[in-house]
Amino acid sequence: MTQELPIIRLRPKSKPQAIRHGFPWVFADELVVDRRTRAIPAGSFAILEDAERRPMGVVTVNTNSKITARMMDPDPEVRITREWIAAKLTRALALRERLFDRPFYRLIHAEADGLPGTIIDRFGDAAVIQPNSAWADRMIEDIAAALRDVTGVSTVILNGQGRVRSLEGLDERTEILSGAVNGPVEVSMNGATYLADLTQGQKTGLFYDQRPNHAFAQRLAKGARVLDVFSHVGGFGLAALATGAEHTTCVDGSAAALELARGGAKAMGAEDRLTTRQGDAFDQLEALQAEGAQFDVVICDPPAFAPSKQALEAGLRAYERVAKLAAPLVAPGGYLGLCSCSHAADLSAFRNASARGIGRGGRRMQLLHTGQAGPDHPTLPQLAESGYLKALFFRLDG
Amino acid sequence: MTQELPIIRLRPKSKPQAIRHGFPWVFADELVVDRRTRAIPAGSFAILEDAERRPMGVVTVNTNSKITARMMDPDPEVRITREWIAAKLTRALALRERLFDRPFYRLIHAEADGLPGTIIDRFGDAAVIQPNSAWADRMIEDIAAALRDVTGVSTVILNGQGRVRSLEGLDERTEILSGAVNGPVEVSMNGATYLADLTQGQKTGLFYDQRPNHAFAQRLAKGARVLDVFSHVGGFGLAALATGAEHTTCVDGSAAALELARGGAKAMGAEDRLTTRQGDAFDQLEALQAEGAQFDVVICDPPAFAPSKQALEAGLRAYERVAKLAAPLVAPGGYLGLCSCSHAADLSAFRNASARGIGRGGRRMQLLHTGQAGPDHPTLPQLAESGYLKALFFRLDG
Repeated sequence: MTQELPIIRLRPKSKPQAIRHGFPWVFADELVVDRRTRAIPAGSFAILEDAERRPMGVVTVNTNSKITARMMDPDPEVRITREWIAAKLTRALALRERLFDRPFYRLIHAEADGLPGTIIDRFGDAAVIQPNSAWADRMIEDIAAALRDVTGVSTVILNGQGRVRSLEGLDERTEILSGAVNGPVEVSMNGATYLADLTQGQKTGLFYDQRPNHAFAQRLAKGARVLDVFSHVGGFGLAALATGAEHTTCVDGSAAALELARGGAKAMGAEDRLTTRQGDAFDQLEALQAEGAQFDVVICDPPAFAPSKQALEAGLRAYERVAKLAAPLVAPGGYLGLCSCSHAADLSAFRNASARGIGRGGRRMQLLHTGQAGPDHPTLPQLAESGYLKALFFRLDG
Repeated sequence: MTQELPIIRLRPKSKPQAIRHGFPWVFADELVVDRRTRAIPAGSFAILEDAERRPMGVVTVNTNSKITARMMDPDPEVRITREWIAAKLTRALALRERLFDRPFYRLIHAEADGLPGTIIDRFGDAAVIQPNSAWADRMIEDIAAALRDVTGVSTVILNGQGRVRSLEGLDERTEILSGAVNGPVEVSMNGATYLADLTQGQKTGLFYDQRPNHAFAQRLAKGARVLDVFSHVGGFGLAALATGAEHTTCVDGSAAALELARGGAKAMGAEDRLTTRQGDAFDQLEALQAEGAQFDVVICDPPAFAPSKQALEAGLRAYERVAKLAAPLVAPGGYLGLCSCSHAADLSAFRNASARGIGRGGRRMQLLHTGQAGPDHPTLPQLAESGYLKALFFRLDG
């Protein structure tokens, strides 16, 4: 009983092995793209066949995207329904409930959690969906309904912004699909309290991926003077306050983000230990040096300076400059954490740029720890090379 | 006031920049090796000069080793004395005291902690020194005395075994330098109690490097049935018991190691939740499959299958085979941790071998976490590529 879906087929010389072993994507040049394939509406489903016409599974098709087909299920008989989505959510929830005591985490991290191109972050009773693939955009109501059923959340927000959607040919849209949003949400993580703006903030309002790196910084921060550059809503800075830092200075370009950082510190009863400085981070680093400021722990978590291969050289120079400007602010024997969320800059390139910058900042160093995104951001081993988040923790000379 | 040390010199075409920027080694082919250089006794000190006769620092020389010179101090005026060693130990201790609540850790991790080729592990009131470089072998009494002064330990053991010493032309020797050893030492780590045999065990008696990976496994192990293959003294298995695993099975080839594992479980009051199986790990994995055994968490932490480049191909096949044999033992939706401590197998090669093995074991997977050695094993960024320990945590399909 085969379902009545259109069929798309691999070219004769393409190699189906990678897909059979779990690689989730089919690029345009691997497919026979004829008139019938081009007529498949973006985000609908099809049966993928190999060149010998053997079915390989159900895929979602988007001929507007370089990733023309994404594997939904290796069983070609499966129907992609609300129940199918609910089963994926149930499986993802079981992992998060094992990992975390409280319901604040990334619930769905796209392909690795079985929902291609789809991101869902949970904030207690609320959740934010980023449908970054056409099928998810089309089935958003089913995803939202399954999400409410499986997790019990009441507020569901669609956040349809960002570069990835445009690569898929999707428009920007943000909607409250159910429930209500009354100001920022309090989020508990590593003992700190953050305020996340689920409708106006960057991405889904908070960066859960840095959780283990915040936790590592906490091990260095007891009693410390901490500087958190590119702080956003205070990720590293508030984590440090929660673990007993003497004082934290948060630097960010966004006045709105810094207001949320102050709100988080207030919710923790730590507002008297937080200073915020709004402005360009490079300018602020230079100003702090001119003031003779010294910190026991300095963390720099900039936006992606190398979001694409074209931007790699300039991006690495920017990372080096951050390291060079930050290193002199670290007290003798203190700690420097440098982060990159650039896909294009691999670990080795980022580490070299950082070490070069620290050296040009006049310091010698040990590398203590290399952090990554937390386990609520699983990957497929076949895509693991692209692990985007790196956090390097250095100890500088005394 | 230059000190009267012999001088060794870089060849005219060698590039001093890497050394000036912190690369700690000089290989034989970068040096002018004349009769005078060859006459320098192994493990003594010299002044390294660049080709223009500018002093670059104090190095230790060993013409028996491919690493002919190791940087001791970039200041050519420095004398390498007991006080100099004590200063390095003080700096290293400050980091460990910040990181850990209890005095159980790697105190000195060679070059990155400023004592080239020297490893020191601390076990409360005792410490084990591995002098894997000729200078440390020669100055072992000074290192031991400084160690007692700085940390207050009373028992100091010299463990001079292993492949690295033979590369330096050093003999095997093991001695109690001070204090006394009366049976295994109780070690507290991640809430578990381990028994470490400081004079008879592998390396320094316990593998501190796996501490963060034990801790990650603990997040998966509450209430779980756990299998710890290549368990040694019960690293992952006892950590799981400490966090509330229902039951742990430890498999190892060494009866002595398994006896220490049972002793650790007894010290924790958990001996009724531990089973040990002695024998070849591959045979035991096959036997467990024949018995139809299933576990919620399976961890395999084998010895280095690829200790050298020559052994890489065979080593990767062995890692793949471990994964293939272990995967069927993991219950639906359960977890599989695979470790490698092979320098020669880089992360990408090890991850590919592991994923291939799991696939050939009939399972699909998510990669949750990639672990490394803990922060008491710092590296120099210039040597960070060689990070030897990798721990991959997978969740298998339901």
